[in-house]
Amino acid sequence: MQVCRVVGSVTATAKDERLVGLKLMLVRAADSGEDTPSFVAVDTVGAGIGERVLVVFGSAARLATATRDTPTDAAIVAIIDPERQPKDE
Amino acid sequence: MQVCRVVGSVTATAKDERLVGLKLMLVRAADSGEDTPSFVAVDTVGAGIGERVLVVFGSAARLATATRDTPTDAAIVAIIDPERQPKDE
Amino acid sequence: MQVCRVVGSVTATAKDERLVGLKLMLVRAADSGEDTPSFVAVDTVGAGIGERVLVVFGSAARLATATRDTPTDAAIVAIIDPERQPKDE
Amino acid sequence: MQVCRVVGSVTATAKDERLVGLKLMLVRAADSGEDTPSFVAVDTVGAGIGERVLVVFGSAARLATATRDTPTDAAIVAIIDPERQPKDE
Amino acid sequence: MQVCRVVGSVTATAKDERLVGLKLMLVRAADSGEDTPSFVAVDTVGAGIGERVLVVFGSAARLATATRDTPTDAAIVAIIDPERQPKDE
Repeated sequence: MQVCRVVGSVTATAKDERLVGLKLMLVRAADSGEDTPSFVAVDTVGAGIGERVLVVFGSAARLATATRDTPTDAAIVAIIDPERQPKDE
Repeated sequence: MQVCRVVGSVTATAKDERLVGLKLMLVRAADSGEDTPSFVAVDTVGAGIGERVLVVFGSAARLATATRDTPTDAAIVAIIDPERQPKDE
Repeated sequence: MQVCRVVGSVTATAKDERLVGLKLMLVRAADSGEDTPSFVAVDTVGAGIGERVLVVFGSAARLATATRDTPTDAAIVAIIDPERQPKDE
Repeated sequence: MQVCRVVGSVTATAKDERLVGLKLMLVRAADSGEDTPSFVAVDTVGAGIGERVLVVFGSAARLATATRDTPTDAAIVAIIDPERQPKDE
Repeated sequence: MQVCRVVGSVTATAKDERLVGLKLMLVRAADSGEDTPSFVAVDTVGAGIGERVLVVFGSAARLATATRDTPTDAAIVAIIDPERQPKDE
């Protein structure tokens, strides 16, 4: 599980039917710079752009209620509390 | 899930019987240069060369309808809309 | 499975309901410096900050009793004995 | 899925009983040099040394008929046709 | 699957109950130097320190008899025969 920051979102009209209705967010490791690659995670907790979140990968990403049986390999499953975040950038 | 660009395709006559009929596309991370490695993903949404797509990895790649129970570890599951793509190269 | 050191913890009020009650620890590969990325693992053995622990990844992380069916992809499943640890930093 | 080149084989007399009879090939990413690490994949399609092949990883490697329920995390599932291979080295 | 060399072992008194009785070995990619990270794999074939072994990762690591349903993500499943090892260091 990785602490990431939400940096954007993507939209896709042509997609697998199981992805319809899922929010696809662009995230990046929270302690990395803008030159590091971003990737896409399904938001399951209402995270907004700029927030620090917890992302899970692999089959774990499909154990959130919203993502069950969807072709998803990364999901935002928590929003890190601002007061106790591990690093202030 | 990774935003990739379709850069080609591969054909293989000798292959596992479960791969017969699947479209094997060469893709590369969308925000990376041509010197970065490409890899192969099964196309499930009719993606064309040059398009930006969403690729899922691992067991998630077998949750698209076309890839169920096939020896696949990467699948194109969406075509990113051009208007709202995260980065214009 | 990786020998890691516990370097902190994270708290998240907004999270998947299956994560409620789990201890989310920040860990880092034990033989790496502070400039290497940390990540989050669920503690299942009562590990404390500073201890060397064994972390498992992927679906293995959900085979500890505390993490079954939770959206978890990394778990602390053992505390390395101090006397026989592989490297003294 | 990765386009690899078969560069050798390994033999192991002492092994898990489920690996008996499987062909363990050494492969390397096809577009990488000899200084890049090789790894081992189970051959399920009769690939020979020097051929370009398609390798799948993770649980996908056990969806070929020959590898079902074996402790395998990488399998050769196709031989890339020489005429349309993506890169000529 | 990776050809690794066994370089040590770890002991852990406090651990998940399913890990009790398993041999936790420190291994490192066989073709890498001592400055590369080591990791931990469960030994299922009686491998000794210094031997070249085959390590499987992920859910494959739990398909050896000894590791079934244990929180294990890496297992030694074979000892490479010395006569035909791919590289003599």
